[in-house]
Amino acid sequence: MTSQDIIGLNVKDITFIDNIKSMAVIGSSKRRNFFFLRNHAEHFKGDIYIVHPTIKEIPDFDNSKIYPSLRDIPGDVDFVFISVPSSQIINVIDDCVEKGVKLASIFTAGFSDAGTKEGIQLEKELLSHAQNKVRLLGPNGMGLFFPKLGIAWRRFPNIAGNIGLITQSGGVCNIAIYMAAELGLYFSKVFSFGNGTDLDFVDILYHQINDPEIKIILCYVEGINEDRGKDLMKVFSLNKKPIVVLKGGRTKTGSIAAKTHTASITGENKIWKTIFKQYNLIEVDSLEQLIYTGQLISYYGLFEIDNVAVFSISGGYGVILVDILEEVGIKVPQFSQEIQDKINSKIFIVGTSANNPLDVAAQIYRSQTMHDIMDLALSDKKIDALILDMPSFYFSVKFHLKKDLSFEDNMINNFCLGHKHNKPLIPIIQQVNYPEDRVRAFKKLTERKVPVFANPLDFIPLLPKISKFTKRMKMR
Amino acid sequence: MTSQDIIGLNVKDITFIDNIKSMAVIGSSKRRNFFFLRNHAEHFKGDIYIVHPTIKEIPDFDNSKIYPSLRDIPGDVDFVFISVPSSQIINVIDDCVEKGVKLASIFTAGFSDAGTKEGIQLEKELLSHAQNKVRLLGPNGMGLFFPKLGIAWRRFPNIAGNIGLITQSGGVCNIAIYMAAELGLYFSKVFSFGNGTDLDFVDILYHQINDPEIKIILCYVEGINEDRGKDLMKVFSLNKKPIVVLKGGRTKTGSIAAKTHTASITGENKIWKTIFKQYNLIEVDSLEQLIYTGQLISYYGLFEIDNVAVFSISGGYGVILVDILEEVGIKVPQFSQEIQDKINSKIFIVGTSANNPLDVAAQIYRSQTMHDIMDLALSDKKIDALILDMPSFYFSVKFHLKKDLSFEDNMINNFCLGHKHNKPLIPIIQQVNYPEDRVRAFKKLTERKVPVFANPLDFIPLLPKISKFTKRMKMR
Repeated sequence: MTSQDIIGLNVKDITFIDNIKSMAVIGSSKRRNFFFLRNHAEHFKGDIYIVHPTIKEIPDFDNSKIYPSLRDIPGDVDFVFISVPSSQIINVIDDCVEKGVKLASIFTAGFSDAGTKEGIQLEKELLSHAQNKVRLLGPNGMGLFFPKLGIAWRRFPNIAGNIGLITQSGGVCNIAIYMAAELGLYFSKVFSFGNGTDLDFVDILYHQINDPEIKIILCYVEGINEDRGKDLMKVFSLNKKPIVVLKGGRTKTGSIAAKTHTASITGENKIWKTIFKQYNLIEVDSLEQLIYTGQLISYYGLFEIDNVAVFSISGGYGVILVDILEEVGIKVPQFSQEIQDKINSKIFIVGTSANNPLDVAAQIYRSQTMHDIMDLALSDKKIDALILDMPSFYFSVKFHLKKDLSFEDNMINNFCLGHKHNKPLIPIIQQVNYPEDRVRAFKKLTERKVPVFANPLDFIPLLPKISKFTKRMKMR
Repeated sequence: MTSQDIIGLNVKDITFIDNIKSMAVIGSSKRRNFFFLRNHAEHFKGDIYIVHPTIKEIPDFDNSKIYPSLRDIPGDVDFVFISVPSSQIINVIDDCVEKGVKLASIFTAGFSDAGTKEGIQLEKELLSHAQNKVRLLGPNGMGLFFPKLGIAWRRFPNIAGNIGLITQSGGVCNIAIYMAAELGLYFSKVFSFGNGTDLDFVDILYHQINDPEIKIILCYVEGINEDRGKDLMKVFSLNKKPIVVLKGGRTKTGSIAAKTHTASITGENKIWKTIFKQYNLIEVDSLEQLIYTGQLISYYGLFEIDNVAVFSISGGYGVILVDILEEVGIKVPQFSQEIQDKINSKIFIVGTSANNPLDVAAQIYRSQTMHDIMDLALSDKKIDALILDMPSFYFSVKFHLKKDLSFEDNMINNFCLGHKHNKPLIPIIQQVNYPEDRVRAFKKLTERKVPVFANPLDFIPLLPKISKFTKRMKMR
């Protein structure tokens, strides 16, 4: 298949990835206790072959034949993972071409990323030896994580989800995968393309916008070659999915660091400024924001938030939340008269009334009352979301005035009311004592797809970004 | 003592608080299982008396006499905590005057905070009945937390520290105390003054800037009366301590919410804008930032940060950190040639060299190498601080390539190198698996006074604020 499906769009096809049936791990070293072999052997669902020129035995792999070269493998090999020293890489790539390998993931570093003439030259040779017959991921990248086929590293949560992740950096990829799993987010396909010699951000993004299993795309990108700017813009113009982008190297020193890291060209910050203005993308500032944005969209779908209800355990914390919300352009309007009246009929603490923000005070301990007033607030037509805070010690029975063993699960059910109303409900569970209660409550809520934050500044600035994206998406 | 020590400065003296020897709890109710009595009885080091007009017996207080009124107590009573209904408050205050009580903390709400004519009137009466003989905290506040004398609520961490906290909101106070304790921060005196009828922000702040046991002052303030603006400015001009201020009600809706909460006057945002410009204060945007700023200063003292060293476990995460730092005005310069050479002699991974940001990669597992390069980076004269990231799974032995049971404690020792160099060292321990390893490492680091964050945006924006404060302080 050629890469000219869209007029003038220059992208490489990688849809064959969905049909990878066999792989080889080339160059897993004894010094690292065959780390990369063990990684891939753990989950891969097809045939896996071991290639090593000298080693004859590997602990735990007694029944596996070790082939001295790729060419010696009898069957087809669709995918290879390469971690041989850079001096041997050209020979291995020649073998890949000869063997009809479709995709080679090159972990080895020391090419253009080294910043040396030799490294740059070697990377060029790599590309020319691949002859456009073998697609390359890397060098200097973690490669592919594709849970559906079991292409994964050893301890990765090998659960297939519907999120796509594209990062140059293998380390960022690694952190993102684990961080997401803690938040109950799972990936469909993850690509870490390192220096991006062959397959680059544009190719992979094009694949992900067309991959029916991917619903949200998260990207950490340091750079693209300047001659790819037009292609990237074409891909963005074809996109119909939420794309969240963390651009690495936005600042002067950051761009120098990016150059050292993945040889990314620093001059293209201009391209990115144009892109963020022209195309409907969600730009974020940190890896945590990238993951949290993915979490919010994954849990609640795309949403528009203009007006929110704020419930707080303390009048003061409510005031703080309102300030933070209003500073990012979100309003905290009064409830409709009807809803106010209904909420007032539920409230039993003197001096408390159905304001927005609502000071919940000691009513927090009555989970049924809480259910009713949360349900009412979310049923107000002009309210788009409910944000509430509850310090984690409320989940500790030690703190209860009257022990109520069903309180925790009742409150967790209450926190799921957002799903009933199809409006985001986001609890802030402050990091106070006790850590074990906090961990337990977080886990239960994550399982129910309720995003929990410890800090309002972790997620409130993301809400208008998602909202703006959703509005622009509707206007198309 | 009059309040005219400083020419034209109108503040009320409360230094007598340091000598409180006896207290009475008035109006603790059966319905709440004598919550406020139990609270204060747990820690108070002086004589504690129980006042209740009708109740004759209280579980667990068999040996305590219950006095029907304050006047019936034989000895002196320096301090009272009042939670009687608002209708009874005037009589109780009259008793306080009669009895020579010095400070009355009024928890009861429903005064000017209720927004009713009656409430406003009752609050005025409260003040006039106190006759300037009894100082009042509240109404509608949590009152005083003073661990040294055991004036505390039941489960409060009753450990005396050197931080002062002033909040109107009792709820914010409560969250702040627990949140701080989780971070190893302890308070000297905490005041929650609610509506601030008598003692207000200005009086308490004046006390705290002169209290030799208080080294850092954290404030959450919703409002001051407009006629107190000049006094507040005078107090700020006398101050020589770090003061961190979270102003509640900065926005329009926030100021309306603040009015409902503590009857704070909304018009004074102008005063605050002038104050933040004119006086050397650290302004923050959230309760978490208030506590984190206190933590950073408490752990490392005041510091100036212009140039930082960044160590990252992944080149990409290093790029992200550099961008975030440079966006708040902090530089990440190269190390001096001498330091570069020394670091290079320690580095053993091909392709890695002594850049800033430094991609630590797999060297993270060698705690002695890490020690040496961290020590070298901090010894560079132009480097003011070290920021590094390490996902929490590195603390899990399950993840080690080669099991190293001393790794965790060695790394924790390494993270203490900031104290050796008297420069902030701030680790980011990303929230990846496993929660239990994370909790353990956090605890160990907190004990060693190393501040740990999970998210760079939680603390990086605070660094230039602290730095600017320190520079202005030096110029005085």
